[in-house]
Amino acid sequence: MKDEFAFIQSLLPKKQYHRSLIKGIGDDAALFHHGDEYDTVVCVDTLVENIHFKRCTMLPAHIGYKALAVNLSDIAAMGGIPNYYLVSIAVPKKGWKDCEVKEIYDGMNELAERFKVDLIGGDTVSSNQELVITVTAIGTVAKGRRLFRQNSKSGDVVFVTDFLGASAAGLSLLLEHGMNYPYAKEQRELIEQHQKPNPQIKAGLLLVNMGVRAALNDISDGIASEANELAEASGKTIVLDYGKIPKHPALGSFSNKEIEDFVLYGGEDFQLIGTANKKNWDQIQSAFHEANIKITEIGYVKNGEPKVYLLKNHSPFILDKRGYNHFRKNE
Amino acid sequence: MKDEFAFIQSLLPKKQYHRSLIKGIGDDAALFHHGDEYDTVVCVDTLVENIHFKRCTMLPAHIGYKALAVNLSDIAAMGGIPNYYLVSIAVPKKGWKDCEVKEIYDGMNELAERFKVDLIGGDTVSSNQELVITVTAIGTVAKGRRLFRQNSKSGDVVFVTDFLGASAAGLSLLLEHGMNYPYAKEQRELIEQHQKPNPQIKAGLLLVNMGVRAALNDISDGIASEANELAEASGKTIVLDYGKIPKHPALGSFSNKEIEDFVLYGGEDFQLIGTANKKNWDQIQSAFHEANIKITEIGYVKNGEPKVYLLKNHSPFILDKRGYNHFRKNE
Repeated sequence: MKDEFAFIQSLLPKKQYHRSLIKGIGDDAALFHHGDEYDTVVCVDTLVENIHFKRCTMLPAHIGYKALAVNLSDIAAMGGIPNYYLVSIAVPKKGWKDCEVKEIYDGMNELAERFKVDLIGGDTVSSNQELVITVTAIGTVAKGRRLFRQNSKSGDVVFVTDFLGASAAGLSLLLEHGMNYPYAKEQRELIEQHQKPNPQIKAGLLLVNMGVRAALNDISDGIASEANELAEASGKTIVLDYGKIPKHPALGSFSNKEIEDFVLYGGEDFQLIGTANKKNWDQIQSAFHEANIKITEIGYVKNGEPKVYLLKNHSPFILDKRGYNHFRKNE
Repeated sequence: MKDEFAFIQSLLPKKQYHRSLIKGIGDDAALFHHGDEYDTVVCVDTLVENIHFKRCTMLPAHIGYKALAVNLSDIAAMGGIPNYYLVSIAVPKKGWKDCEVKEIYDGMNELAERFKVDLIGGDTVSSNQELVITVTAIGTVAKGRRLFRQNSKSGDVVFVTDFLGASAAGLSLLLEHGMNYPYAKEQRELIEQHQKPNPQIKAGLLLVNMGVRAALNDISDGIASEANELAEASGKTIVLDYGKIPKHPALGSFSNKEIEDFVLYGGEDFQLIGTANKKNWDQIQSAFHEANIKITEIGYVKNGEPKVYLLKNHSPFILDKRGYNHFRKNE
């Protein structure tokens, strides 16, 4: 696939049959009317062996944990509460033991228990070469409280939750040394972020419950890519200040160049990037402080072309969508 | 996977968080409470290249059509109306052109338009070797009208919709002669049933709208397998009469042995097998006759071990779950 974004554009349905549909293709998850209090949010994500994970970097339980986390992160980016998930798994006829496949489900279950999500269905099939796992997650969003990517307005604060760069740094360590290396404590922290990322469900809910206008996107492909998605969906220019982006404190042993790569283009941090009305910013900061979730102002939105500018050493340059290409360097 | 059924049993969640869940793992689709009038039904199915389809037997559009049909058939077996679908597709880096992937979506769209189903989301990723397509379908079922597999009772009529055996016969022709052979009209009919199966949405709805108690299952893995699922879910014995099972009229050129294999074990007919109260049988037949959907009595339910007996030439034998193993003979 040369350009996934253009390809998805070409698939956009030309008509819509159901008036209950609020948001189809083009955000983190789809949204449709449910009852009087809630809307339903649904998303699906696939992890492919040797594309999204390698067996030398992830235990089966990590693969399961992450396959569900990716989806819960999409629900977080819509401000939703996850309720259910379905798992479709294609397992190669050789190379995977039944007990290892069971461990994949155990990994999902560990995360599901934390967020009280029920496994309600799925499909188990054979494949010839690679394990492919697809998770569908279904949740609810309070009616009318929609944190769409298109909500950004000129003057908004751009923010990000927690720290960036940990997952990509963890992956680089795993690819260099494998899983059984005697890692230092800080390195293990980075690896943990890669193998068992934490979807920011509570952060999305906080914003929904405050009732503020906000645009939100989860950082699965790197902040460069996700900031561009916000800019494009909202038709605005986003300006980010590299100095303000919170780099994970355990990145200290990497070079500045590596840290920049991890922070800007290293995906799978599953933090949330968003924009909110400047006048709500103090209130948002207080609420996040009270909930003990780190949130940082990293830039602003202005009228202009849907592009992202990065200020670095006081010089702006265009931050393109390059994003994160899984294992590209290693192939 | 040695035994998918046993494996799925081992995955059954030990607890359930959401009281809104009506039916989780163990039927054609999951069901949960929605608003006052409807429940939501959701299912997911995966097709894997060289396992569920080969490029020499299916055009890209057929692959898409079938990937959605498989899911709509699951919704049919719950008596539901499909509303939405999401598509996750893993496309090999080599061997598939973008225009061919687009044709897969066109194939889905053809069926989606017929049943007014909206594509609302998905994921597009790379794979190394095989194309894997996973469709999640979401629909609604009138509140309380549930055609679960476990609903069978002693004395019930066992019925099947339309004809059986066409899809497997079509596949055997395609595997022998390929897609460009000058097939006779009857052969083309069988091939069409394999490449573009028709989910029996209307049949499921008819039963729901009549408000009769019925158990229902769609025939994705062959009637032998699906009848056993009904027997197990309901804890009853099912007796089928081979002579009464409607064989597809275009099967005439095959041997009796082949026809038996296609009809009993040849999956992917996507007809519905079900059981219903004997006292409603005349009413059901009339309703189906009026709707121009063929429905045939093929056996009965009785108390006893959860097994299926097949009467053939007046002798009963146990019909095991052998089902349909895709391409097993050819590998």
